[in-house]
Amino acid sequence: MRIAVLGTGTVGQTIGEKLLSLGHHVTLGSRTADHEKGKAWADAHGDHAALATFQDATRDADLVFNCTAGVGSLEALQAAGADNLRGKVLLDISNPLDFSQGFPPSLSIANTDSLGEAIQRAFPDTLVVKTLNTMACPVMVDPSRVPGDHNVFVSGNDAGAKTQVTQILTEWFGWKKNLIIDLGDITTARGTEQWLPLWVRLYGTLGTGDFNLHVVRA
Amino acid sequence: MRIAVLGTGTVGQTIGEKLLSLGHHVTLGSRTADHEKGKAWADAHGDHAALATFQDATRDADLVFNCTAGVGSLEALQAAGADNLRGKVLLDISNPLDFSQGFPPSLSIANTDSLGEAIQRAFPDTLVVKTLNTMACPVMVDPSRVPGDHNVFVSGNDAGAKTQVTQILTEWFGWKKNLIIDLGDITTARGTEQWLPLWVRLYGTLGTGDFNLHVVRA
Repeated sequence: MRIAVLGTGTVGQTIGEKLLSLGHHVTLGSRTADHEKGKAWADAHGDHAALATFQDATRDADLVFNCTAGVGSLEALQAAGADNLRGKVLLDISNPLDFSQGFPPSLSIANTDSLGEAIQRAFPDTLVVKTLNTMACPVMVDPSRVPGDHNVFVSGNDAGAKTQVTQILTEWFGWKKNLIIDLGDITTARGTEQWLPLWVRLYGTLGTGDFNLHVVRA
Repeated sequence: MRIAVLGTGTVGQTIGEKLLSLGHHVTLGSRTADHEKGKAWADAHGDHAALATFQDATRDADLVFNCTAGVGSLEALQAAGADNLRGKVLLDISNPLDFSQGFPPSLSIANTDSLGEAIQRAFPDTLVVKTLNTMACPVMVDPSRVPGDHNVFVSGNDAGAKTQVTQILTEWFGWKKNLIIDLGDITTARGTEQWLPLWVRLYGTLGTGDFNLHVVRA
């Protein structure tokens, strides 16, 4: 499959490497086609890896991951272009963490709205599924890093898109199906994005990102 | 011990009954001393149970639980009075859930502030410890309702107060000490209060409040 991974940071690279290992073609999307870190990554990862502008990466993609920093996601997706995103499943992994006032970060969108919703509103013809944004990126693509049962969430308006994302989570990334919780429509992204302030504090307290939350039920 | 439980709703009654079962004297605090539901509860729970105004409940208390609805907590605590709260440990269990715009609720304080912090600012001579606000009240006082390991958090500025609260959680309510996570100062209440939007959605998805979160570590 041809996959656009928007964002050249740690999250994008980690997702990209996992997708490459599964045999997919991965194009990292960046503001510019000569982004130094992105180009180095593409050069180091063989013929199936490339770097392109957000627009060029998205145009031919069958599937799109948003791994950009949340505060810049809407701008990055506008650069990718509504036409290039039309009808496609967009896995939105980003969080609107705003570090501009220092630590702890606040959220640039929160409470009565979420970045997932804002993206869906801005691109109504794209099938936005918020997922994987509740954990560190090494855990996203290798849940066995954290022992035992723990969960991943999906939020989105389109049932078919959520089914496809659930398959990606299970068949590609190794998540057990019974540990994937479908929270409902895209407004439920408010819940997972607002988990981040607690995640950030737990990261500080535990001193590692190798943890995840398990919803334990009676 | 003489304990003021501010709030006559389900949370206050559940906490109050647990404290009574341990032999403590419990006074539910309410806006008025003739609050119907609160009076019925006190009448039904024997000589160690009483109902009083926020002020009267707090004046003689050794320990205070804030179990009022979060959107009214500051007003309730003002009624209790800074003098009556001075030097006391206040377990703040409330969440600033605002249902005025329907479901899902928003938070009346969020993101760059929290109710826990607002209470601590308003009552600088009170030892505010945010805890237990991340779960349904039956689980607060009986963690064994949910099988296996799961967590409770404490946030507060005073180490001694957090030690006392940790003892209350373990010795009175049955929490295992290794499952109590001290997140840090009262600003970390932003994390646990902003978990509520996800909690509310999980409540809807799971159809029960008998669940809790477990932070699973590598």
